[in-house]
Amino acid sequence: MRTIKVQTGRPYDILIERGLIDKCGQLIKEVSKAQKVCVVTDSNVEKIYAKRVIDSLKEQGFETTLFVFEAGEERKRLSTIADMYSCFADFHMSRKDLVVALGGGVTGDMAGFAAASYMRGIEFVQIPTSLLAQVDSSVGGKTGVDIQQGKNLVGAFWQPIRVIIDPDTLNTLPQHFINDGMAEVIKYGCIKDRKLFETLKNENAMDIIEDIIEICVSIKRDVVNADEREKGERMLLNFGHTLGHSLEKIYSYRGLSHGEAVAIGMCIITAASEKSGITKAGTTAEIVSLCSKYGLPTSDSAGFGEIAETCQSDKKTSAGKVNLVLLKEIGVSFTEPTELSKLEEFITV
Amino acid sequence: MRTIKVQTGRPYDILIERGLIDKCGQLIKEVSKAQKVCVVTDSNVEKIYAKRVIDSLKEQGFETTLFVFEAGEERKRLSTIADMYSCFADFHMSRKDLVVALGGGVTGDMAGFAAASYMRGIEFVQIPTSLLAQVDSSVGGKTGVDIQQGKNLVGAFWQPIRVIIDPDTLNTLPQHFINDGMAEVIKYGCIKDRKLFETLKNENAMDIIEDIIEICVSIKRDVVNADEREKGERMLLNFGHTLGHSLEKIYSYRGLSHGEAVAIGMCIITAASEKSGITKAGTTAEIVSLCSKYGLPTSDSAGFGEIAETCQSDKKTSAGKVNLVLLKEIGVSFTEPTELSKLEEFITV
Repeated sequence: MRTIKVQTGRPYDILIERGLIDKCGQLIKEVSKAQKVCVVTDSNVEKIYAKRVIDSLKEQGFETTLFVFEAGEERKRLSTIADMYSCFADFHMSRKDLVVALGGGVTGDMAGFAAASYMRGIEFVQIPTSLLAQVDSSVGGKTGVDIQQGKNLVGAFWQPIRVIIDPDTLNTLPQHFINDGMAEVIKYGCIKDRKLFETLKNENAMDIIEDIIEICVSIKRDVVNADEREKGERMLLNFGHTLGHSLEKIYSYRGLSHGEAVAIGMCIITAASEKSGITKAGTTAEIVSLCSKYGLPTSDSAGFGEIAETCQSDKKTSAGKVNLVLLKEIGVSFTEPTELSKLEEFITV
Repeated sequence: MRTIKVQTGRPYDILIERGLIDKCGQLIKEVSKAQKVCVVTDSNVEKIYAKRVIDSLKEQGFETTLFVFEAGEERKRLSTIADMYSCFADFHMSRKDLVVALGGGVTGDMAGFAAASYMRGIEFVQIPTSLLAQVDSSVGGKTGVDIQQGKNLVGAFWQPIRVIIDPDTLNTLPQHFINDGMAEVIKYGCIKDRKLFETLKNENAMDIIEDIIEICVSIKRDVVNADEREKGERMLLNFGHTLGHSLEKIYSYRGLSHGEAVAIGMCIITAASEKSGITKAGTTAEIVSLCSKYGLPTSDSAGFGEIAETCQSDKKTSAGKVNLVLLKEIGVSFTEPTELSKLEEFITV
């Protein structure tokens, strides 16, 4: 088993191994004094994994209940969180009890926020089953929910007490969602790891996915350790995300996945910075080529004006500025506070 | 000006002085880099104080907006929090902007939770205008909202960056709400300060309210410093509250105020512990007498069985146990983990 230690306010371990999902009860028992566990999952993941997780928890003597919401980003809203609170309260969960987030990023974000705010905070465990969640969203303690005005505008920083990653769950993941996660994998290569970027070029990532997950999680861990509450270094993880979020918003979170939006965001922002002489020549072509290899789009028909305008309500904008994450070259990134009013001009290449 | 320093994760000052409300802009400017400020208040407090607060903020160059909700505990619910999020987002508030909670406990609890969760946490300032909020709820960082299953079942520990207490605001407070706050004042005497208890007996509290507020806030500060997240010492502040919360629930948070419920709770639990020989003889009579002096009820027609039963869903119950706060004598308190199943028997005197 690969173990990655995260040193946030409350330290915790990320465990990676094939088949781990059937041992989750034992792995949770090691770190929790809960009597009751609510497993939160969506209607897709429920069918495949809920029973195995519940069985493993029961084997260790936990009392369990299941909260299932309809799969999809549209359910990532406050009313779903309110339903979770009711479920926890009806199950008479106390401050010592536990929430398990079983599923992709939407599940982890929402279950984490519900855990962060139920009784002012109870413990939770992440069992991410999508590539996106395994390499990114399950690590770092960001939880959240969308509101009408924007994505993840409500949430909390709340660390899990353990993250249990079973790469075998990717076998049941539709290809579309694999691509989605690959955008974040490529991002890690872009911002921090030229070697990872080369590996992704030269190999088929899914053939060595345990290595890939370990590398990505380690990068994220290092960044989060340095900056738990996203005041500086952690912003680098937003490479491609500022424009990506705008695109997701323009498409009302439908028709364009998070990973696809991030891929386009990485390509647009790097084309802009390359044109401005900030980024080494040829970098954009490399990113475009790698995104294409993994089935990701690299451009969109939305106008730069609309994208820039939509940024204004993004939570990373502060006092009329946005912190753009730019590359010097593949593997070397930095943040650049930029006037929102100049964003359109910057990205119009 | 009296200044009380609180040493939580993020230290902050509590300032007490008559007339402070008109200087709030300056006092906030000293500790915040916000450009935008949303003042959250209820429909009663708005009429009296909103303009003065907004004017003072504008004088210091803050951009301001006002969020007003209909006064009353019934509005302490998730839908009001959702409306606050929308207000913040429509006002394009960023992570560096600020929420001001202007009003009583309900306002502080809700505005604090909205601040804790908007963009995963932005700063907030408390300007408590009720006695209850000034001596209790504005200090300590507990924020929250009621759900159908119980009071404050959702929330966060989130410290304000400053608490601004203007005792002159009590002049406009209906007597009923003064009494409400006095229950918490009496509680501080009971759990920690015999001398305060005697002062309350021998003087009219409102004649020396600045001293009283300072004493109460200092006691709460000491307890919170020792135990920010309520794992031990802080539980002492729940004296009278376990049964009080049950009573409030039995009355559906109508007809019986929080302070009235706490007063009855203190009397019932002390009568029980005195009968069991845990508490010095005569203590109950002293508490009953002092509560009566300040217009507070000391008993209720609800049956002990019903009260005990309702405790079961209280968030302080953990694994079938409840942490009762009991007195050895006035000024000396301790917690006693008690089986929920034995609670009815214990309080039936």
